[in-house]
Amino acid sequence: MLFASEIELLAVIYLVAITAEAMSGALAAGRRNMDIFGVAVIAFVTALGGGTIRDLILGRFPIGWTQHPEYIYLVITAGLVTVVVARYIYHIKRIFLALDAMGLIAFSLIGCNAALEMNYPLAVVVISGMITGIFGGVLRDVLCNQVPVVFRHELYASVSLVTCLFYLGLRSLGVDADLNTAFSFFVGLALRFLAIWRGWGLPIFSYQHRWE
Amino acid sequence: MLFASEIELLAVIYLVAITAEAMSGALAAGRRNMDIFGVAVIAFVTALGGGTIRDLILGRFPIGWTQHPEYIYLVITAGLVTVVVARYIYHIKRIFLALDAMGLIAFSLIGCNAALEMNYPLAVVVISGMITGIFGGVLRDVLCNQVPVVFRHELYASVSLVTCLFYLGLRSLGVDADLNTAFSFFVGLALRFLAIWRGWGLPIFSYQHRWE
Amino acid sequence: MLFASEIELLAVIYLVAITAEAMSGALAAGRRNMDIFGVAVIAFVTALGGGTIRDLILGRFPIGWTQHPEYIYLVITAGLVTVVVARYIYHIKRIFLALDAMGLIAFSLIGCNAALEMNYPLAVVVISGMITGIFGGVLRDVLCNQVPVVFRHELYASVSLVTCLFYLGLRSLGVDADLNTAFSFFVGLALRFLAIWRGWGLPIFSYQHRWE
Repeated sequence: MLFASEIELLAVIYLVAITAEAMSGALAAGRRNMDIFGVAVIAFVTALGGGTIRDLILGRFPIGWTQHPEYIYLVITAGLVTVVVARYIYHIKRIFLALDAMGLIAFSLIGCNAALEMNYPLAVVVISGMITGIFGGVLRDVLCNQVPVVFRHELYASVSLVTCLFYLGLRSLGVDADLNTAFSFFVGLALRFLAIWRGWGLPIFSYQHRWE
Repeated sequence: MLFASEIELLAVIYLVAITAEAMSGALAAGRRNMDIFGVAVIAFVTALGGGTIRDLILGRFPIGWTQHPEYIYLVITAGLVTVVVARYIYHIKRIFLALDAMGLIAFSLIGCNAALEMNYPLAVVVISGMITGIFGGVLRDVLCNQVPVVFRHELYASVSLVTCLFYLGLRSLGVDADLNTAFSFFVGLALRFLAIWRGWGLPIFSYQHRWE
Repeated sequence: MLFASEIELLAVIYLVAITAEAMSGALAAGRRNMDIFGVAVIAFVTALGGGTIRDLILGRFPIGWTQHPEYIYLVITAGLVTVVVARYIYHIKRIFLALDAMGLIAFSLIGCNAALEMNYPLAVVVISGMITGIFGGVLRDVLCNQVPVVFRHELYASVSLVTCLFYLGLRSLGVDADLNTAFSFFVGLALRFLAIWRGWGLPIFSYQHRWE
């Protein structure tokens, strides 16, 4: 067996995930014609911003990445390399979307565990998972001055929600943590791939009535 | 007497307030054509975001709503129900504005008390009250990609400021906390209603000189 | 000698810096036609927001300005005075840019020291310096609903980076802290002035390929 446990596998997937998120941040910065410093900042915020907000809200100090300088170097490098290879990324769009999906789900599970360790109520555990999963992208879009795509796009945030609920469900049934992580990971991934493939999305709420 | 104390009354008003704020968030999300997940997030952030930023800045952990899952369920439910009843809200516009005003003032007083309990300087107490009162709406507008309405609108944030100053003034005169809360609440509410009714606003600062 | 030490000099420069930053915030608010309350908030956030985010991320409570109400009064006063004197500021544009540059560098060095005192890894020390230096302006631009100018402008954020690296370099060589502060300050300032004078900037990353 390649990995000692599924938790260790999650750690490897985490590195892949922050790399993919950093690249998605760099591309968004490029769409706004930022300079390479801006690219590095947006890459950093997209990759590590969700975990930062989670740690702040849970009161979990020191914040994760401050104890792992290697994450900092990794995401900034990924952002800057993206500038060079940007023209080729479109051709591996499917790989990129797959990495992004793995990131979304790995982040969500890691976020759930962070709150579980601190004995927060279950509703907070789910929110912790979702913040970790999607708020890096929210910060990216706010800094790039656009409405967060995660609030109006296909089934993306909902995949994070379902993954967190599934994980907590199996956990309450007493399923072993490693097995549960693996199960939840593949359920979440399958749902995300189905959503991309079939173009699934949530109902839109349009309200154009202005009062003022 | 219906309530044991004015502080308890404030707790009831708080629940009404986060419901009203969640609904205002949901309507803003609808103006941006978000999906129902986005509606739930914006409702949550509008209702509980001000208190979250206040707790972060005061270093007040665990953050309020993480210990009250019932608030989480309440604001998300309020946001989703708004999707269904949105077409009717316009007809109760006045009730809605009244609930919103009550929320603004209840949030402000609760924010002052949070900082007073931690012995922060009075300037920080006032800022704590104002952050609680208005930053939920600021976060809502940032996530909806617009200039926060609270910075350019009628007398709204100023009502929060006056309420906080009035409350601290009476407090320094030794007025009983319950009585003070009731007094400040009605002074703030009266000022807000007057501001809506008379269209009061602060002077605008227009500066169109570009240097670059 | 006028000042007991260069560290003390840095404290004086800090007061000049938050004043200049508050004024830049007020002008940005004026460009968005905010009311004077909005002006005060944006002035406050621009001047003290970078240090606030730094303290949050380092888990450094209580947050700096909450223990210094005089900073609060200073930046709000500076913001409101700007409304009155705005028409004259253009004529002292060079002085203003010089004060802003001094602020950028003073903030960066203060941010480095904040993280050094808490024994964070060096990569975090540099990030702490840069957040202190530039995130007030980032928050200002987000609240004014524009892409942060610091991500697309001339050599500004990079000056913060170079200053932090230079300071840490001399520090690792065992240079006395006061001397190091003075050296780094003037190196940073010279670089910023050169960048303004020569119009230096970083390469831009433009990526217009949309996938969706």
